[in-house]
This record gives sequence, C-alpha cells and structure tokens, in this order.
Amino acid sequence: MNFIAKLELAQQKNNSLLCVGLDPVLERLPISCRRDKEPFLSFNRALIEATADLVCAYKPQIAHYAACGAEVELLATIRYLKENYPDIPVILDAKRGDIGSTAEKYAIEAFERYQADAVTVNPYLGGDSLEPFLGYAEKGVIILCRTSNPGGADLQGLMVDGEALYLKLAHLAAGEWNKKGNILLVVGATWPAELARVREIVGKIPLLVPGIGAQGGDLKAVLDAGLDSRGLGLVINSSRGIIYAGSGVDFADASRQAALALRDEINRHRRRLS
Amino acid sequence: MNFIAKLELAQQKNNSLLCVGLDPVLERLPISCRRDKEPFLSFNRALIEATADLVCAYKPQIAHYAACGAEVELLATIRYLKENYPDIPVILDAKRGDIGSTAEKYAIEAFERYQADAVTVNPYLGGDSLEPFLGYAEKGVIILCRTSNPGGADLQGLMVDGEALYLKLAHLAAGEWNKKGNILLVVGATWPAELARVREIVGKIPLLVPGIGAQGGDLKAVLDAGLDSRGLGLVINSSRGIIYAGSGVDFADASRQAALALRDEINRHRRRLS
Repeated sequence: MNFIAKLELAQQKNNSLLCVGLDPVLERLPISCRRDKEPFLSFNRALIEATADLVCAYKPQIAHYAACGAEVELLATIRYLKENYPDIPVILDAKRGDIGSTAEKYAIEAFERYQADAVTVNPYLGGDSLEPFLGYAEKGVIILCRTSNPGGADLQGLMVDGEALYLKLAHLAAGEWNKKGNILLVVGATWPAELARVREIVGKIPLLVPGIGAQGGDLKAVLDAGLDSRGLGLVINSSRGIIYAGSGVDFADASRQAALALRDEINRHRRRLS
Repeated sequence: MNFIAKLELAQQKNNSLLCVGLDPVLERLPISCRRDKEPFLSFNRALIEATADLVCAYKPQIAHYAACGAEVELLATIRYLKENYPDIPVILDAKRGDIGSTAEKYAIEAFERYQADAVTVNPYLGGDSLEPFLGYAEKGVIILCRTSNPGGADLQGLMVDGEALYLKLAHLAAGEWNKKGNILLVVGATWPAELARVREIVGKIPLLVPGIGAQGGDLKAVLDAGLDSRGLGLVINSSRGIIYAGSGVDFADASRQAALALRDEINRHRRRLS
C-alpha cells in the first residue's frame, strides 16, 4: 500500500487528521524520562501509547535526535511504532535536499535506515534532486511549499510571472514532478489564504500543515482553506502543544487530553463544513 | 579566528584553493579499508594524511555517513582532523534548513556535535531560518545559491523582477542577511556564466564550487568567472575524482597525485589571470 492510501486509512480508522510531532528536548522532558537510559525513547513510547488511537501519523523531527547523537533512540522509536502500531504512518521530518548520488544517500537514510513511510524534502535544488526520493513509489515525499515562519516569504513569496514562487512550486509538484503520485506538500498554518490557493492548484494532494498551537496558526481558518472536497487532504501537525501538555508523572495523560481536544476540535469544524 | 580568515590562511599556507570531499561509499573503498572495523575512518585518515599539505579544506558530506549509521566515523574523522591538522577548516556538507527551534538543533548538530568550522545550508525557508546558524559568528554558513545539477534551474532560474532567483538570493545573502560577515555561497562549476554574475554581486565573499571532475565542470572557465580581485574567493571541491583516483593498496598515493595535479592546474590558471 502506498503512503497516501495508508495515511487516509489511518485518518478514517482514528477519525483524525491530527499528526503528533515527536520532537523531544532533554531539558523539557519529565524527570521520570530524564532518568531513563534512553530518555527520548521512554518519552516517545509513553506519548505513543497515550495517543495512538487519536492520530493519523507521527512525525519525528530528526534534528532533535541528531543534535545530541540520539539516532539509536529515533530508530528504536520508529521500530516500536512499526511493531505495535503498523497502521499508523511515520513521517520523518528531515527537510533533506541534495543532488544525484548524495540525494540517493538521503533517501536511503529516510526509507531504509529509518524505515519511514514518508520524508519531508526541500525543493530548492529542483525536480531531479527529488527523483531518488520519488523513486520509492510506496513512500511519501512531502515537499516544502509555503513554510510557517515570517521569513518564509523571503524566497517563497517572490513573484514569478505574476504568481508567487510557492505557487509555481505547487504547479510543478502536483504536475510534472508527480509521476508516481506520491508527492505531498507542506504549507504552514499561519497562512490560510495561501493554503487555499495551494489547495486550488493541487486538487486532492494531501497537505502537511505545521504551525497550529505554539506558532499561532488559526485552526478554523486552516480547515476552511485546506480541506479537500472529501473533507480530507490535511495532516494537521502539533508538537509542543501536545507532547509538553504536562510535565509531571501524568504527562502522558495530559498529552492524551490535549490530543483528544485538538482532534475533536478539528472534527467539529469538519462536520460544520461537510 | 572566524571561518573565512581560517580558510584564507589555509589557502595561503598550502597555496591551494582545493577542497577534498570526504564522501565514502562502502562498495567503492579499497579492500584494505573495507576489512577495517571502521572502514570510513580508515579510508578518510589515509586520504587526509596523503593530501593535508595540498588542500584548503575538507568537506565530509553527511548523507554518506547517515545512510549507513556511521555517525561515529564522521565524528572520529573530524576529531582526527582537529587534532592533527587544526589549521585546515572542516566544512560539513549537510544542506540543512528548518525554522526556529529546529534550526537551532541543526546548528547544534553541525557546530557543537560535529565541531565543523562551516556548514552548508538551504535558503528556501528564508532569512530567519538561517539565523540560528549565523549566530555562531566564528563559523561559516555556506548558502546554496546556484547548484550544479540540470534541475537546479527549476526554481533557481525563475525570473523575479527581470533577475533570476539565485541572483536575488545572492543579493540577500551578501546584503541584509550577512550581518556577521560569515556567509559564503555555493555555486556549481557547471554554470561559469552564472558564477560570474554571482561574483559581481557578492564582492569578495568566498564561493564553494562543486561540480569539477565527475560532474563535468570546466576548471578554466570557473576560475575566469569566479576568482575575486585578489585571486582568491573560491573553494574548488573535488570528491570522487580524488578519493577514488586509485583502488589498490596505493590508493592514498593515487589520491595525492590527483590532488596535486588539480591544485597545480588551478594555480597555473590563477597565475595566468593575476
């Protein structure tokens, strides 16, 4: 089964568009996890056990592991997910991008070493730089389109033939680059009007939307702008708002409550719009 | 001492603009290295010992290590360089790019975990995404501008207000983004005319130029187009042409000969142009 089909099955099974970002930072972990020999794995396992029936995907961000040499804990987290929750896809948030044989190595890193179901990539190097990723037809390749940070417009917002660069990119990604139908795009929650324009261009291609919560994105506006004609097509990511919902011994319960509340709030808006 | 000063000292000391890319691939290593418990480290040490008086920098490409879980060998290679050749800067080729707290983690990965002197980064996410890297004033931040692959033009070549996107980027990088004077740019050897236009915009900012050798870039044209007014300002990278120059027990000697030939060929053109 390819990534988009797996994602949509998980969305239906758990009635959820929510993706939880697994971005552990040692100083923010509950003391019980910090004492563990593998603190990130201990934290992630507790979060996953508490939320696995509420999400459509998990998204570990690799820099959080690479900064402190915790690749082994990232591997163990994904292995734990595959063994216990094989129906929930894993998105490796890595934003990789390089050319030729080096891009092949990055694709091996994401899809073979880490066994991710999808990876985020950066399009600045052009279509051929993405081919080594796209060649894994069963995997998802999630291309940065319009990012949620203020400086995102520095390049993405430049006008090309009367159209912003990120819209040009959306045309390329949904069109000639998408030969195997395994492309998705990243569009930040902070720009709902731009999300709506991307949706017009890409049809039913799913969009990964970070920026809800800590970054201030407006959930209702995101759903108005981004849902496809089936009430699907969005993967709404929240990291800090869920994984740091609590900090005591009951942190996993607090994360479950936060995930439940966000999933249900998303679903209320979806019902209203259907 | 900041990165650009360290780089220029190494260029002067070794009379060299040559950077050697340390991009090991297990199947291509000499049998003597493959048998070693740490094959990449064994290979890299031999290459470094054979070429350290001929180069201005080494550039390990992190994907080659990450694809097979060899982070420890990358760390050991850089530690070996720092201990034995502290005057030669290390460029970590990682092409990272993300926002906010995640970009901070990537900067920690490059500059604190790996102790690199410089790192390559991707500008698609805009100026604020680079600030966590640029905040390390002593370190070099080498921004992708115009890459050497055919698809590089897909986005980089799009026209913005009558000027290609990569030239817009060059203006931003050399101007408002470069508050600490620690920015460099990547411009591929396959586009000498475009290299010349970047040089016009960025003054004496050093340019890292991959694509000589295996990728077919024309060395003479690159030097004509890219040297600054002092006959400096370029870091000419070669990876496969040097590290795989030989494959037998004498592979390091073959690499030395290849490095010497390329350094001297670069210098012949520099003298002609001076």
